[in-house]
Amino acid sequence: MTQAATISGDAVEHRRAEEVFAAIAKMSQDKAGVSRPAFSVTETATLHYLEDVAVQAGLATSYDAGQNLVMSLPEDAQAEKFVLVGSHVDSVPMGGNFDGLAGVVAGLICLVRARTRGACFARPVKVIAMRGEESAWFGPCYIASKALMGVLGEAERNSLHKGDGRSLDDHMKSVGIDMASVRAGKPLVNTDDILEYIELHIEQGPLLIGKDLPAAVVSGIRGNFRHNAINCIGEPGHSGAVPRAFRKDPVLAMADLLSRLDEAWLSILQKGGDLVMTSGVVHTDAEKNALSRIPDHVDFSLDIRSQSQETLDGMRQMLTDEMAQISRDRKVEFELDGVNVTAPALMSETVVTGLKTAMERLGLEPMVMASGGGHDAAVFANAGVPSAMVFVRNRNGSHNPDEAMEIDDFLVGTSIIYEHLMGEQDREE
Amino acid sequence: MTQAATISGDAVEHRRAEEVFAAIAKMSQDKAGVSRPAFSVTETATLHYLEDVAVQAGLATSYDAGQNLVMSLPEDAQAEKFVLVGSHVDSVPMGGNFDGLAGVVAGLICLVRARTRGACFARPVKVIAMRGEESAWFGPCYIASKALMGVLGEAERNSLHKGDGRSLDDHMKSVGIDMASVRAGKPLVNTDDILEYIELHIEQGPLLIGKDLPAAVVSGIRGNFRHNAINCIGEPGHSGAVPRAFRKDPVLAMADLLSRLDEAWLSILQKGGDLVMTSGVVHTDAEKNALSRIPDHVDFSLDIRSQSQETLDGMRQMLTDEMAQISRDRKVEFELDGVNVTAPALMSETVVTGLKTAMERLGLEPMVMASGGGHDAAVFANAGVPSAMVFVRNRNGSHNPDEAMEIDDFLVGTSIIYEHLMGEQDREE
Repeated sequence: MTQAATISGDAVEHRRAEEVFAAIAKMSQDKAGVSRPAFSVTETATLHYLEDVAVQAGLATSYDAGQNLVMSLPEDAQAEKFVLVGSHVDSVPMGGNFDGLAGVVAGLICLVRARTRGACFARPVKVIAMRGEESAWFGPCYIASKALMGVLGEAERNSLHKGDGRSLDDHMKSVGIDMASVRAGKPLVNTDDILEYIELHIEQGPLLIGKDLPAAVVSGIRGNFRHNAINCIGEPGHSGAVPRAFRKDPVLAMADLLSRLDEAWLSILQKGGDLVMTSGVVHTDAEKNALSRIPDHVDFSLDIRSQSQETLDGMRQMLTDEMAQISRDRKVEFELDGVNVTAPALMSETVVTGLKTAMERLGLEPMVMASGGGHDAAVFANAGVPSAMVFVRNRNGSHNPDEAMEIDDFLVGTSIIYEHLMGEQDREE
Repeated sequence: MTQAATISGDAVEHRRAEEVFAAIAKMSQDKAGVSRPAFSVTETATLHYLEDVAVQAGLATSYDAGQNLVMSLPEDAQAEKFVLVGSHVDSVPMGGNFDGLAGVVAGLICLVRARTRGACFARPVKVIAMRGEESAWFGPCYIASKALMGVLGEAERNSLHKGDGRSLDDHMKSVGIDMASVRAGKPLVNTDDILEYIELHIEQGPLLIGKDLPAAVVSGIRGNFRHNAINCIGEPGHSGAVPRAFRKDPVLAMADLLSRLDEAWLSILQKGGDLVMTSGVVHTDAEKNALSRIPDHVDFSLDIRSQSQETLDGMRQMLTDEMAQISRDRKVEFELDGVNVTAPALMSETVVTGLKTAMERLGLEPMVMASGGGHDAAVFANAGVPSAMVFVRNRNGSHNPDEAMEIDDFLVGTSIIYEHLMGEQDREE
């Protein structure tokens, strides 16, 4: 077997990857892109489909206490300690097909490749297809991995689905999860049994495209704090008749706040800091708003991320201070929902080195980068599991239907993980 | 009859006014406040109810070519030239009951008072209950009066209802208006026949409350330019993974634009200019937006008003310039819908003097003020009809369910108009 065949996979693997991606895209097709809501029947159907593919390939399958699908070589099914490879299968509404799913399919292909070749891994390997990770459905993110690690909080469980208004707790129960353990904050798996957690993911920024590299190893993940809905409350009035001094305009107050935060962002970057900031959801009250009416209130989301906890703390303080200032100046009120917080996560040096070494063995440039997006790997890392990620080159970002990952690049990323899982033994055959 | 009885009306008039307001509020009740959509069946039902009240009081009624209700003393029904008193009956969604309706009921009460007293007006009087004036339903404002004056433009007729998406033209046809004349830009009435147009309206700002006066005469009406929906188009992306330099964020671009216009507003006021500015409707795409997604685009309305055409022209130029600058800096695009423009309107000095004289005769302080809000009176004035307005003290502004006009104040305003319509003759009896 040549290096080239290992790196880009063979025609059979190429076809299998394409088929699996296409079949799942079809199952979750929406007006644009795909929609696989967290803890939905579509998500369950996706896991069942993957289970079928695994069973047909001669793999062992089971569901864990979080109702995530677990796949392995038959001989590894009962292994007590194992390397865990995987990602999530849910997507944002009308999102792309690869965000999350690519990491699951990569793990599955590693298993099938080993099974086909009759090879065995240096240590037992389990591949996990996790449920809800995206915050788009309930507000909190990394839900399935937080539940597994026993750190899914009460406020998160009580958050409401933006479509049907039912709680996350209720939705999780609906897919068959015994919520007693989750509510008790008990890990659903023994974290000491997970030797490593490895997650392949499409890059969500433009760095690998710019550097013309197919894949990279991730050294750290941005933490964040997020408000699903900050409500700025003003006072309705006639758009033409209320003089400026009498107004309590929530939209101009929001514009003022966002502009101030935007300026702070620029200043942090100029000082060499790391930050991204997004207000992705902005709505005046659709039932009451009108062209000629000073709006009652405006709701807007805020997602602020950094690799530095200090920068995040500074931005939280600044948000509080600026809201207080604007409330006084513009006679509005800001009502904040609960904040969702994720700490920045450092990847394990050992696992990062392992993956880099695998890249070198495959003749790839051992590129290492930071992750802008948050991932389940952050939850595993913060729970003490040595974790690392592989990013695959991808055009047009993620969370949109235009995600564009080449299958060749995907198989390069998959091969990096496979090579790492095999360790030195494969080369000694 | 004493002056006091004339100014505040008698108990029968007080009760009649309350009953009419209450009955119409009940017919158009919504979750909050009232909703009387322009050119809707609710609006038609409101006209039918007013017609019944008029007929029972022995008045003559008819519908004009714009399907507005016209009421008069029987002896004035065929008069060729007449003073027109009235306003509109539609409301904003979940708005207050008095905005518009008060002006119609005031005219009706003038007629009933004359009929009851066996008095006759100095010149024939007709009272008009007009249809759609509010921009909340289709975008354009003053629809019924523009149609009457033959100035309802094609873009306005083609504007779509924000609820059902059907065009204004279609809705107007549905209530029985022959649209051929409207489309041809022909006045539906002979404007030379209208000796004066007089409109009572609740004050929509806080001035009369502040001055502790029940009513005032209006000397001029702010003009405006309005965009129902400016679409700022960016590029979707992952909220955490796209660095600032690669972003095309439409929400931050909108915040930047609104903040710049807000600063210009403050500066114009500091120089003694007149301006109000409102962005009443702001929405990211409800189907695609998510906390963790840089939004594709954001739609927002803009309503900018001034008594000075020069100031309006300056703001339009500034809007164009700032959008161009922000498009370059932030790599977004601004797509503008058609602009709705209304010129500032000066009230007729003769009619203003007539109403002021009436106030003096009634022993009231002859307060004169400018109107911040736009009104049908602006359309009549700009079509060459000598026009003026009476404002009635009102708490909490308009376009909201908390409008609070006292019936006593309303009857004071009504008496000002009645006294003006009677002229000197009533006093010589």
